[in-house]
Amino acid sequence: MPNAINFAEKFSRFAEQWQPKIVAQMNDYQFKLARIEGEFVWHSHSDTDEVFIVLEGEVRIDFRDGAVTLHPGEMFVVPKGIEHKPFAPREAKILVVEPSGVVNTGDAGGDRTAPNDVWI
Amino acid sequence: MPNAINFAEKFSRFAEQWQPKIVAQMNDYQFKLARIEGEFVWHSHSDTDEVFIVLEGEVRIDFRDGAVTLHPGEMFVVPKGIEHKPFAPREAKILVVEPSGVVNTGDAGGDRTAPNDVWI
Repeated sequence: MPNAINFAEKFSRFAEQWQPKIVAQMNDYQFKLARIEGEFVWHSHSDTDEVFIVLEGEVRIDFRDGAVTLHPGEMFVVPKGIEHKPFAPREAKILVVEPSGVVNTGDAGGDRTAPNDVWI
Repeated sequence: MPNAINFAEKFSRFAEQWQPKIVAQMNDYQFKLARIEGEFVWHSHSDTDEVFIVLEGEVRIDFRDGAVTLHPGEMFVVPKGIEHKPFAPREAKILVVEPSGVVNTGDAGGDRTAPNDVWI
């Protein structure tokens, strides 16, 4: 019998920021934990929506026409094709849900692109 | 700009147990909040995995060959086709992620079947 997936235990295994780690897969969707702090890059995912659930800290997601701020116990669905830029004033812990194969920088690419199939 | 989806605020809008409420959709997957307490029925979903994330309380998922107990900050993926029976000793609050159209009682049906397209 597999064990429960404990987010705190998974976070205790890595410290690097902006490097999502897969903790579970449901059909062809993956659940990824990430530590984020500061600004990310503007990007979009042309083929898929993307879910952010905040577990710890505060996360702002900037859009070209506004922003949404998320606290623990809150989630947001970024619609496919919409440019967005996550930001966290201090380190925050998030759970991202999206199809397998999605890259963190989406269509933008660049040096902030993390390996996209790292399990922890 | 849509607001953040706040789980506590969503839970404040309903009291009934075992009646999942959709709070978000990502592609063709839905995020559902539910209050559960006591025993559910044995059932399986022949076409899909199903994710349980515990937000409050303690949830045990029984399988024919074992069980897993989940606490807040823990999740579990029930594989498709696997019979399971959720149980909560006291009221627990959970987030379920699964494709749209999935019925809570799966292939079992019966009088515990909840309407499966109720947004809140």
